[in-house]
Amino acid sequence: MEKQALTLVKVGGAVVEDPEALPRLLCAFSQIASPKVLVHGGGRRATSLAARLGIESRLVNGRRITDENMLEVVTMVYGGLLNKQLVARLQALGVNALGLTGADIDAIRSHRRPERDGIDYGFVGDVDRVSAPMLQALLEKGITPVMAPLTHDGRGTLLNTNADTIAAETAKALATVYDVTLIYTFEKAGVLARPDDEQSLIPVITPRSFATLVADGTIAGGMIPKIENALSAIRQGVGRVIITHSDLLDGQHGTLIKGVS
Amino acid sequence: MEKQALTLVKVGGAVVEDPEALPRLLCAFSQIASPKVLVHGGGRRATSLAARLGIESRLVNGRRITDENMLEVVTMVYGGLLNKQLVARLQALGVNALGLTGADIDAIRSHRRPERDGIDYGFVGDVDRVSAPMLQALLEKGITPVMAPLTHDGRGTLLNTNADTIAAETAKALATVYDVTLIYTFEKAGVLARPDDEQSLIPVITPRSFATLVADGTIAGGMIPKIENALSAIRQGVGRVIITHSDLLDGQHGTLIKGVS
Repeated sequence: MEKQALTLVKVGGAVVEDPEALPRLLCAFSQIASPKVLVHGGGRRATSLAARLGIESRLVNGRRITDENMLEVVTMVYGGLLNKQLVARLQALGVNALGLTGADIDAIRSHRRPERDGIDYGFVGDVDRVSAPMLQALLEKGITPVMAPLTHDGRGTLLNTNADTIAAETAKALATVYDVTLIYTFEKAGVLARPDDEQSLIPVITPRSFATLVADGTIAGGMIPKIENALSAIRQGVGRVIITHSDLLDGQHGTLIKGVS
Repeated sequence: MEKQALTLVKVGGAVVEDPEALPRLLCAFSQIASPKVLVHGGGRRATSLAARLGIESRLVNGRRITDENMLEVVTMVYGGLLNKQLVARLQALGVNALGLTGADIDAIRSHRRPERDGIDYGFVGDVDRVSAPMLQALLEKGITPVMAPLTHDGRGTLLNTNADTIAAETAKALATVYDVTLIYTFEKAGVLARPDDEQSLIPVITPRSFATLVADGTIAGGMIPKIENALSAIRQGVGRVIITHSDLLDGQHGTLIKGVS
């Protein structure tokens, strides 16, 4: 039997905190047919609240060092402020949104990242498992999960987890039940052949074309691990990954990453 | 057909923020048979975060004046920090908790309180309706809602709503489906005939005995509206209300308020 389509959209902190971009993103998201899931970040807002509280933000390889004080900050900003604002706005658009951290309904269990190369990330969680059956039960009630980048260890402690990772792991888990389209939103039109030229959008990337594009230097830097993760999600059952502008979530725009050449 | 029993426990900010009382409360709550609901406050923590951010807390008749900055503070503290810590701890105790504000699954719709007697409470919501069917759908999946004292207006705005009110309104709405016991927790054993004497617990209050206890001055001050609200909840279908110490949630302790003499 054919699986039902499900769309999972990941939106970064830059859009969530932009008073002009956010309404457009939410409108575009509201127009996606259910079932659907929204995963959000919020790092900039966490950094600014931390600063107001006199707490220093330290990032290593783009990942936030999360001591006890910073864990409180991200719990407030990700799990409270941003998540609940998104939920309230989606409700106003007719989307029956439900804010979740990984602790809620035990949605995402993780373990504290062990110290590596002398770096202790603190209360940062690496995902162990996503509870697809619980999420499915919500989705079947017409509920749209809105997921904050927080998980828990099952022993009472919340852990800070990267939103891209939450999106990928949730997409993989839901792929056992649904035909999943995973959309990473972005401030650009998609993957560009020339970074400053929006007309140079690469419409489709396959494992084969990716190898070529990396070899000839068209795709470089931080985009390489992003696309590697997308291809890995596809190998693990996700139907397709789209990297697109946060205004354009209809599946017809951006760069489509798919498994078959 | 007999309705299924449901217990709704309201716990105030003083217990939620007490590192010794909270684990005892959560353990006692975890031992209540499902279905059950936890409603929490958190005013002290909101006041302390506001102070750290240089935002003044103003209370009128015990209710918080909630301007835009204060709304952000309570959204962070109630919807984020305290709610998610409670959820993570309950998960560790084997309770499949799910944190909710009124915006999540459109659980509680409210309207902004109009200015009265020259007092503008700001972003404070008076409850219009609680969605019993959605809560019931969650409860039937074995999920335990953990409700923060926030509601929404359905037009995208979160509103600050007193936790006692959330508890009473939710209890009334669920009473259409369940035989509801509403438990208000407290730092004392229950309603005391002599405020400083824990041995002077009044075990049962009925509408008739309440009138007598008020007339002879045994019950006075802030306890009068509390019990009036309890009796009103009972008139609107709640099976019974218990006012008890936060350690003792088994339904066998505290003051039982019931409708029939």
